[in-house]
Amino acid sequence: MRPGEFDLIERYFAPLAANCPGAAGLRDDLAVLTPSSGCELALTVDAMVAGVHFLPDDPPDLIARKVLRANLSDIASSGARPRWYFLSMGLNDTVDEKWIAAFAAGLAHDQEVFGIVLAGGDTTATPGPVTLSVTAVGEVAKGGAVRRGGAKAGQDVWVTGTIGDAAIALSLIERTGQAEVSRMFPALLGRYRVPVPRVGLGPELVGKATAMADISDGLVADLGHICAASTVGAEIEFAKIPLSPEVAGILAESAAGAEENRLRILTGGDDYELLFTAPKEAAGDILAAAHKRETPVARIGVTTEGNGVRVIAPDGVEIGTAEGGWRHF
Amino acid sequence: MRPGEFDLIERYFAPLAANCPGAAGLRDDLAVLTPSSGCELALTVDAMVAGVHFLPDDPPDLIARKVLRANLSDIASSGARPRWYFLSMGLNDTVDEKWIAAFAAGLAHDQEVFGIVLAGGDTTATPGPVTLSVTAVGEVAKGGAVRRGGAKAGQDVWVTGTIGDAAIALSLIERTGQAEVSRMFPALLGRYRVPVPRVGLGPELVGKATAMADISDGLVADLGHICAASTVGAEIEFAKIPLSPEVAGILAESAAGAEENRLRILTGGDDYELLFTAPKEAAGDILAAAHKRETPVARIGVTTEGNGVRVIAPDGVEIGTAEGGWRHF
Repeated sequence: MRPGEFDLIERYFAPLAANCPGAAGLRDDLAVLTPSSGCELALTVDAMVAGVHFLPDDPPDLIARKVLRANLSDIASSGARPRWYFLSMGLNDTVDEKWIAAFAAGLAHDQEVFGIVLAGGDTTATPGPVTLSVTAVGEVAKGGAVRRGGAKAGQDVWVTGTIGDAAIALSLIERTGQAEVSRMFPALLGRYRVPVPRVGLGPELVGKATAMADISDGLVADLGHICAASTVGAEIEFAKIPLSPEVAGILAESAAGAEENRLRILTGGDDYELLFTAPKEAAGDILAAAHKRETPVARIGVTTEGNGVRVIAPDGVEIGTAEGGWRHF
Repeated sequence: MRPGEFDLIERYFAPLAANCPGAAGLRDDLAVLTPSSGCELALTVDAMVAGVHFLPDDPPDLIARKVLRANLSDIASSGARPRWYFLSMGLNDTVDEKWIAAFAAGLAHDQEVFGIVLAGGDTTATPGPVTLSVTAVGEVAKGGAVRRGGAKAGQDVWVTGTIGDAAIALSLIERTGQAEVSRMFPALLGRYRVPVPRVGLGPELVGKATAMADISDGLVADLGHICAASTVGAEIEFAKIPLSPEVAGILAESAAGAEENRLRILTGGDDYELLFTAPKEAAGDILAAAHKRETPVARIGVTTEGNGVRVIAPDGVEIGTAEGGWRHF
């Protein structure tokens, strides 16, 4: 039997809010947050459902860290520094106290890593799958937030890290099972299961990037969102997209599946890398910031007049990505 | 067939965010909120699940208004003024575009009523029941928020409005069906389906109330939360609890069910009235504020040394409420 809501909160979640005075020990249904002087707040909401966004038998600590990191990635993509989060949990009968304890341990781990605290939340019973919704709150200097709508034609398109790892990992899991992927491609599996939000570099790009998003729906889709919001087009070169050694190897090995894998790289989601535009003259500053934050960055193309995203293959032919990107239904 | 996420957002939800510049037309995954000068932010999260907190075939506009109002009630209970909200929706195959349109219309209606705007959210597919999680954000003068932990022994315990209407309505629905309750007790049904958060009076109580909560878990349970957070006890008199004419009538009529109904009044949830403590000398100011905001208030008891909530019947005997209050599992 699972203890009641108030006992669970007291035992597992109140300690996560200990460093948040505005949470009042989670004894209120409400938290009071005070932005630092000269700052405004950046807020984002992201939900995950068992069987849709994670597997019901995934380790609870990894589920906790994934839902948290997806939100932190959104915060970073605005240039804000993450500070607080709220957690809304729909729990069903499969969840026992051991699950909760492991889930809370995952949260505690990432609170340390990212310097954030739990500020509040809600738990409810559900007859359906476990459903988690996180509201993350960050701070950014007034007027400094980088939005999607600021790109101009003729600017560079940048990404951080490597692209496609999560999508290729997922396709391998579906084909060979998680154990095999864990043995053969542990780094890829890690990218899929515990993404690394770019919370270090994001805030450094305030005043440098003109538009920014994180890659959660897929490279082409998220660049499409920037283009639509900014009323520009974009042209990127496939050859310039940074790939991990594992993905580059898989792409080189299987000529048969190359086209499919190329599409996975372009349209798969869940990489949680930053995607941003910047004037050409900002390149030096961006490279310096990336160096300071030890975050790899790469220029993969340019923004253009017009609209839509074009991807050019090494042979100069455009790659069709059609309905690219993760759609939430 | 239901249109895709982006079309739905564009068509039904972006208009709800039109007056929120920080939401950038919902084209970002993130909103930037700027508190008014001298204010801090009060945030609360509340989730509702079909089949648990509402019926799957309840009118979608009423579902929207209920989940929104439950959150606004939390905001009001801190003395904050509600300004923004975020909506996280898990939608299943039973939800068609007509449902979404009606749901959005309900949100639009209450945005007008309460002067709030949609600032962001998330939609996701779920194989389970429709799951809604709202994060509401309000503003309160720095240091002004009324928390649960501020009550001292020897203060008055106050409530707004009438208590028990929602719980009695629910018990009638379970016994006779919704149509019959709608015919016999339309006011009670309305209280259950579309609660009225006390957003007018809440902010007026800043500097007057020492501790405040809204009655969502039940009068005794929520007073118990205040007592626990404040390290005081409380003694309330059943005869002083304000009842609607309908509930008073039901209580008077059926001697057989009187004890059960008394317990429903004391421990039923979903009234969304304010429950607060204040020094005796604040009574005049509180009555004046209540008059100004046209909100009925009543003193139902006092806080005491010690702990726990005691309810005294008209004959002077204590009423046992045992495990009183809605527990979320």
